[in-house]
Amino acid sequence: MHEKLFNLMARRAIVIPTSEIYNPVGGFYDYGPVGLLIKRKIIEEWRTIFIKEDGFLEIDGRTLLPEVALKASGHVEHFNDPLIECTKCHKRYRADHLLEEKKIDAQHMSYDEMSKAIQENNITCPACQGELSTVKPFNMMFKTYVGAVEGESNTIYLRPETAQNIFMDFQKIFNTHGAKLPMGIGQVGHSYRNEIAPRQGLIRQREFEQMELEYFFDPSEDDSAYLDAVKDVIVPLQTREQQRKKENFDLVSLGDAYKNGDIPVKTLAYFIAKEQKLLNVLGIMNFRVRHLMEDETPHYSGGNFDVEIPTKFGWVEVISLAYRTNYDLARHKEFSGKNLEVTYNDKKVLAHVIEPSIGLDRLFWCALENAYVDDKERGWDWLNLPPSIAPYDAYILPLMKKENMPEKAKEIYKQLISTFDVYYDASGSVGRRYAKADEIGVPYCITIDYQTFEDDTVTVRFRNDAKQVRIPLDILSGELLRFKLNGIVEASKSGLPVIIEQPKKEE
Amino acid sequence: MHEKLFNLMARRAIVIPTSEIYNPVGGFYDYGPVGLLIKRKIIEEWRTIFIKEDGFLEIDGRTLLPEVALKASGHVEHFNDPLIECTKCHKRYRADHLLEEKKIDAQHMSYDEMSKAIQENNITCPACQGELSTVKPFNMMFKTYVGAVEGESNTIYLRPETAQNIFMDFQKIFNTHGAKLPMGIGQVGHSYRNEIAPRQGLIRQREFEQMELEYFFDPSEDDSAYLDAVKDVIVPLQTREQQRKKENFDLVSLGDAYKNGDIPVKTLAYFIAKEQKLLNVLGIMNFRVRHLMEDETPHYSGGNFDVEIPTKFGWVEVISLAYRTNYDLARHKEFSGKNLEVTYNDKKVLAHVIEPSIGLDRLFWCALENAYVDDKERGWDWLNLPPSIAPYDAYILPLMKKENMPEKAKEIYKQLISTFDVYYDASGSVGRRYAKADEIGVPYCITIDYQTFEDDTVTVRFRNDAKQVRIPLDILSGELLRFKLNGIVEASKSGLPVIIEQPKKEE
Repeated sequence: MHEKLFNLMARRAIVIPTSEIYNPVGGFYDYGPVGLLIKRKIIEEWRTIFIKEDGFLEIDGRTLLPEVALKASGHVEHFNDPLIECTKCHKRYRADHLLEEKKIDAQHMSYDEMSKAIQENNITCPACQGELSTVKPFNMMFKTYVGAVEGESNTIYLRPETAQNIFMDFQKIFNTHGAKLPMGIGQVGHSYRNEIAPRQGLIRQREFEQMELEYFFDPSEDDSAYLDAVKDVIVPLQTREQQRKKENFDLVSLGDAYKNGDIPVKTLAYFIAKEQKLLNVLGIMNFRVRHLMEDETPHYSGGNFDVEIPTKFGWVEVISLAYRTNYDLARHKEFSGKNLEVTYNDKKVLAHVIEPSIGLDRLFWCALENAYVDDKERGWDWLNLPPSIAPYDAYILPLMKKENMPEKAKEIYKQLISTFDVYYDASGSVGRRYAKADEIGVPYCITIDYQTFEDDTVTVRFRNDAKQVRIPLDILSGELLRFKLNGIVEASKSGLPVIIEQPKKEE
Repeated sequence: MHEKLFNLMARRAIVIPTSEIYNPVGGFYDYGPVGLLIKRKIIEEWRTIFIKEDGFLEIDGRTLLPEVALKASGHVEHFNDPLIECTKCHKRYRADHLLEEKKIDAQHMSYDEMSKAIQENNITCPACQGELSTVKPFNMMFKTYVGAVEGESNTIYLRPETAQNIFMDFQKIFNTHGAKLPMGIGQVGHSYRNEIAPRQGLIRQREFEQMELEYFFDPSEDDSAYLDAVKDVIVPLQTREQQRKKENFDLVSLGDAYKNGDIPVKTLAYFIAKEQKLLNVLGIMNFRVRHLMEDETPHYSGGNFDVEIPTKFGWVEVISLAYRTNYDLARHKEFSGKNLEVTYNDKKVLAHVIEPSIGLDRLFWCALENAYVDDKERGWDWLNLPPSIAPYDAYILPLMKKENMPEKAKEIYKQLISTFDVYYDASGSVGRRYAKADEIGVPYCITIDYQTFEDDTVTVRFRNDAKQVRIPLDILSGELLRFKLNGIVEASKSGLPVIIEQPKKEE
């Protein structure tokens, strides 16, 4: 199935390896036209659920940050991968990957433990069988220099996460946007990690995109309303107890999970519900919310939950939800010498932070994998995407390239662009164009045919049942909107008479 | 005026110097919540005019590109600034800036000529009066390394322009998207230039955003339809002749400009019209389209036109339109060894390119400067932005924080978020909140008051005449949309009775 989805993505240039005409560097993918449209719509869904619904704010920060900021964040010191080198051919590897290939779990090993395990298991260089070095930390940030002099004082890095801009801008935004807690500030943008070994396509890239929200609050305030709002929401939660027993998740209400002590903070439950809402809107029903184990959790943490989605690569971490206490602001306060407390309700607060952080490319991949239908009967594979994240709302198809049909189709195209994303396609048989629309998940195909000139109607074909209805042009826009907003992807559910006969045969 | 707009932007955190809590590195600005909303809407207007109207495509590429790609593009060799260093204190400067400060025009000087001019004019180090070095090229790309080894083979750069992703992806997209010329492919994204001396705020940054379109075509095809579509459009064109005579622009129709030989290629006229359309949509009426002089134009060029906007910094280049012939594809063909010709109409074509390239941050600045109203009578300054690019469509204001008004206001907020960008504000007097809305260009303020509970109506105050109408809640959404789409920013033009008396006095 994997292979087929990869083929589809390449065939339609949904993503394209960056600089593909050269020997592309691993871990970089451009989004092609279809990929970009889907991605942008996923971002819009996130924006509605994580920003607009709560009256939160969004910023767009620069990706190059000065070294001091990333010392404060801990990335200069700790953002490392375990690097090992062949003493003979000098090829470099990730030590944990070499161990995993030998079925040795290195996830919780120190660098010394990894060195020892490599030696004890007689692991040698996969390329030349040479002896391997000891394991050393390799910092994963891309480093460069600003201005005309290279030197420590003007070292800058490509940010490893979008969150740091938000922490640094928080006090300014707080004071200029109502000066009230709680305050949520989100950001969508590029982040960078110089992976030694990028792999699994979009899953582990060197340049990737994140959608992060930093929710700033005063921990002394009562947050019962946050739990109350979601206490009856049922989620697939994998508790620590279940992980210890090697069990998978159970379906449990967020209210019960909090009562049982499996969710330590009420507001965390609120954001778990939002995460689930986003996934469901994208059509993803199959996932788990995993409470991270003690040894996966930083010392300052007040609770961490990952959303993991089963893919052909295994369970993939797509969202991490972290109660970061006031660690980030405290660090920036220390390193900047600025008091980053804010004044609220007549007291000074160094705000606490809850952070739902989403890997956008991973979510994109999961949405596509989830939507993929290997349809033997239909004769082509297609994407069963919810209309809200389909790349185009509709394909506009003149039945034939004559009799003024292309002109009429282009006229309809122009009428629809202010409200919809539409794609005009006049090449090949209508059946082949339907297949092309299906393949990238376009829910509706609008065909301009002979009858259009007789009675000002067009056919609208629905992706999921491949059946058609006939719609007058003067209500086309409203009907499309109705189908889209109600998620109607079958002609039989459109409330309109389904056309039985086939469209007139092409000549 | 400048100073006042800067103050407004800082006061409302419209942009924030990146890492401001540290000593921020010059040339980087984060967009705050209001700035991001305006920027995003400018992008949407660009997308409608430059992508959707013509059925063009858009991609989203990665920002790190391998060295070979930037050798092909010419940036490794030619993307340089003239660097000069003090032989005593080792401070570094841009030689052309030092010359300009002495009123010497260095724009067309070679590095040797600059060195000579520095010497002849006895220019010394501005900091210590030390002797200056000769002028050397300084490459403005940010360089870093991918993978675990630093070395030539894995040198990568932050892209200096978004265009290169498009050139490299072109053939793939052509073959997967209908295989027809002309084909337009656009991109919005970050680009990077390691300026020795960033200045003028958003105008000359080290990380900035571009909106670029590459229009690929076969030059042997007739492009008369492109000129015909815009031949009656009047534009402010500054010809080469006028520049030689030190004259400013004339208003001229694009048809006449082509006939006179002032626009060398018909399709260039088409894109000049689009550029003007975008500027007008953003409210910018004052600009000129300058035909670049021979010595400003690369050897391969088929014609270059800059859009320049008068600002408090002087005329600023905001859009560059370039007929790049097939230079880019020819270079990538040469360096990649791949034949980048495409097959169209049964022949092989190495496509020609026309490129309208827009500096998004500059356009953003110009839109704000253009909208700025220093309103002595009103008592506060405000932004006269077209509703389509206002950050929020409306502020939602409970008259008072009691009598259930905040709850009702939040209910209305939730109803509007699916269609509009709205902001809930309950703090301070209504007058003060109106001022805050005006200040960032919000066209409508919706106030929930006592009467709302009597007859289910709200007041809507219009930004430009500061007058109000009363609107029933059940048609509020439709009315707001009508105002917005028709650009109605005065109550007196709303078609509804304007309220004469003031709203009930607050307690």
